[in-house]
Amino acid sequence: MRAAVLEATYAELAERGYLGLTVENVAQRAGVHKTTVYRRWATTDGLIADALASTAADAWPIPDTGTLEGDLIELAREVVRGRSPVFEAVIAAGFQSTPARDALREFYARRHEEAATVVVRGIERGEAPEGTSPVELVRLTCAPLYYRMFVTREPVDDEVAVRSARAALAAARAGVL
Amino acid sequence: MRAAVLEATYAELAERGYLGLTVENVAQRAGVHKTTVYRRWATTDGLIADALASTAADAWPIPDTGTLEGDLIELAREVVRGRSPVFEAVIAAGFQSTPARDALREFYARRHEEAATVVVRGIERGEAPEGTSPVELVRLTCAPLYYRMFVTREPVDDEVAVRSARAALAAARAGVL
Repeated sequence: MRAAVLEATYAELAERGYLGLTVENVAQRAGVHKTTVYRRWATTDGLIADALASTAADAWPIPDTGTLEGDLIELAREVVRGRSPVFEAVIAAGFQSTPARDALREFYARRHEEAATVVVRGIERGEAPEGTSPVELVRLTCAPLYYRMFVTREPVDDEVAVRSARAALAAARAGVL
Repeated sequence: MRAAVLEATYAELAERGYLGLTVENVAQRAGVHKTTVYRRWATTDGLIADALASTAADAWPIPDTGTLEGDLIELAREVVRGRSPVFEAVIAAGFQSTPARDALREFYARRHEEAATVVVRGIERGEAPEGTSPVELVRLTCAPLYYRMFVTREPVDDEVAVRSARAALAAARAGVL
């Protein structure tokens, strides 16, 4: 039942955005009674927070190409590939509601932590200096892509993803992170 | 009259956000007749686009500290200092409307172009390699701050601003940009 409701939440978000999301529509789409949804999730913010929590639990594929550079490039490509109306709606929700912001913060903290595995391995192989912050290197790999997609509204493509990963790694190798 | 209307647009955006913005409220706050606003700007998207255009025309202070690193750090600090409800509302508007996205794209293209002056000067002084993309170095300086503020919802402070500028410069010096 939870899976059906959370899937319905994402589908509604993709179709109507944060401000069009209602418990009634989610319940109807999931084929459950709306009082059940109210009892368990209380509000649309509760639905979004749980949807993000369940997404983080799905393993985001952690690349293992054999090199830190290759892994960071794959992480950057996943950001570009992962762009979708649902994803946009969830980030947009952060502008509207405190619980959505809290859910985003927790979601990305987990994502960064998971993805940081590739950096820990890279440091062990001597591909980045000891003392590099693994999470900071992941942040820097992803940030320029999000900046283009959701702030400056510039296009992103594979070249941008590759450059973003290489720039972040160069900063790490210079000992800045 | 234009200045009063655009100031009212920003004030309304700060108070009510993109979805609460109406031509009527802007006209009332600016003390002009709503038909005047409709005639000149047509829609709230027209108001936002013109407000962004007029903001870009105000010179954003271009730092001149004497070093490229110092200038990039100042640019990063301006991003952190520039955070405001209006600023949030305009970026949020990009999730809701195509004209807002177009206005954001033009706004940031101008901002990047203006700020890139500091990089051009730095290259002339030999502080970054010939062939560095000035706009790309500006993007990389700002991106991690926007990523934290509007995506991962993590705090930003002076330390984050300084590190962001240094990381971008290190990437440029490694010849990646």
